[in-house]
Amino acid sequence: MLLIDGTPHGTVPADDRGLNYGDGLFETCAVRDGRPLLWERHLERLHRGCRHLRIPPPLAATLDEEVRGLCRNHQQAVLKVLLTRGSGGRGYRPPARVEPLRVLSVHPWPEQVAERACHGIRMRRCTTPSSANPALARIKHTSRLENVLARAEWAADDPVEGLMLNLDGEVVEGTASNVFMVEGDMLYTPSLERGGVAGIVRELLLETAADAGIPVAVTALPLARLKQASEVFVCNSVAGIWPVVWCDGTDLAVGPVTRRLQGLLGAKDALAYVPEC
Amino acid sequence: MLLIDGTPHGTVPADDRGLNYGDGLFETCAVRDGRPLLWERHLERLHRGCRHLRIPPPLAATLDEEVRGLCRNHQQAVLKVLLTRGSGGRGYRPPARVEPLRVLSVHPWPEQVAERACHGIRMRRCTTPSSANPALARIKHTSRLENVLARAEWAADDPVEGLMLNLDGEVVEGTASNVFMVEGDMLYTPSLERGGVAGIVRELLLETAADAGIPVAVTALPLARLKQASEVFVCNSVAGIWPVVWCDGTDLAVGPVTRRLQGLLGAKDALAYVPEC
Repeated sequence: MLLIDGTPHGTVPADDRGLNYGDGLFETCAVRDGRPLLWERHLERLHRGCRHLRIPPPLAATLDEEVRGLCRNHQQAVLKVLLTRGSGGRGYRPPARVEPLRVLSVHPWPEQVAERACHGIRMRRCTTPSSANPALARIKHTSRLENVLARAEWAADDPVEGLMLNLDGEVVEGTASNVFMVEGDMLYTPSLERGGVAGIVRELLLETAADAGIPVAVTALPLARLKQASEVFVCNSVAGIWPVVWCDGTDLAVGPVTRRLQGLLGAKDALAYVPEC
Repeated sequence: MLLIDGTPHGTVPADDRGLNYGDGLFETCAVRDGRPLLWERHLERLHRGCRHLRIPPPLAATLDEEVRGLCRNHQQAVLKVLLTRGSGGRGYRPPARVEPLRVLSVHPWPEQVAERACHGIRMRRCTTPSSANPALARIKHTSRLENVLARAEWAADDPVEGLMLNLDGEVVEGTASNVFMVEGDMLYTPSLERGGVAGIVRELLLETAADAGIPVAVTALPLARLKQASEVFVCNSVAGIWPVVWCDGTDLAVGPVTRRLQGLLGAKDALAYVPEC
């Protein structure tokens, strides 16, 4: 199911700047019982991205209506909202008057999400580095070739995720997730000042952990430190939290902080599934 | 004029990976008297990019025929070849069998190219950094949001170009060009090990200069050094060579090495215009 600028049979112009230059933004949401979860947060991030890239955001009422219409009949699905700077301009230079292109689509719920939330996943190390660029960091933009190249390093379903490091060997993110670890009684996640996407579930977890009295640090995390952690997990809007039980050759256990945060995410209506344990 | 997978009225699927992830490559060529200049070199770079990204290149005969057909009636124009990884896959993960999307288009020759080749251009300094990532460096891929953001820093036609620096303050490239400078009797251009596009004219100039007995160094170039150079110029496939007469507040003269290299490019059939002096 698809809506391009509100039309089910719309097309994408070949001169669209998203297609030509990766000049766009996107959001991926879990849908449960006909509605997108954490939608207010996704909308807010989309607006933040629009401000940063100076792309006019879609009218809230229009987007809301389209999203509701698309999600209505889906018990469990994935909603994607793609927004590009549209056509026009001269080369990289944006046009004076931007008319964005808006693509909304609903996709089948992926397999094994609930099972992985319970039993955990294996995560390998990617050799494709995560780019350092403060001007692009945190933004969920569509210039994501490095994530594609990182995920293309292996073809199998398992390992499920790949770890991307910056050129200093510090953990930045998973190819499609944010990374957390537990050390002592503290929760840690990489700083995204120079790279990586500021995930919605990451943001929610930072708040949730603080509210629950779990101290959190956002900091540089060398790979070696991650592998010595007592717990590691990845998160994104579809997965919620997936414990990591194997990281680049090192076995890890699913721990109590991970389980507690999974429960808290569920209580905050952030999960489209019930973990299958 | 446009051909999408060989069809004049083709469309771009909304799930194309170029649109969604910047998962593609492109070439921009100058067209003169019905044929694309330096076409063999562009084709070779496209193939290099395809190998690097593991996108199957188009059949040479097909592409050749399409390019020739499109360019045939154009005395002076710009040809763009865009190749994406097509549709499919799961998120960032490419499909097992890639069916690329191919978009060929011809655009009007831009104004003032010949005039700028003679009188030079002004080049400002961009604050948007050039990303450091050896896995993406040199490739003319479509994940170019940083170039868009750099060019979006100013709206006017003049300055014509913007200089992008890496996080160490070294010159990487112009937003849409490569950068050279002359110091003493040597020609210098930034190393592209960590970022920037390996331009066709840049590559041709490195060979041409060496053949002409002009010593060349590919090295790290701090901005301060560029501004003290005796000559600075930028190059790309449409511009050929444009002397830089003002760089981030510093006036520069058009010098003899720049003029000599312009002449040599002309003699190598690399220019679609005669410089207007």
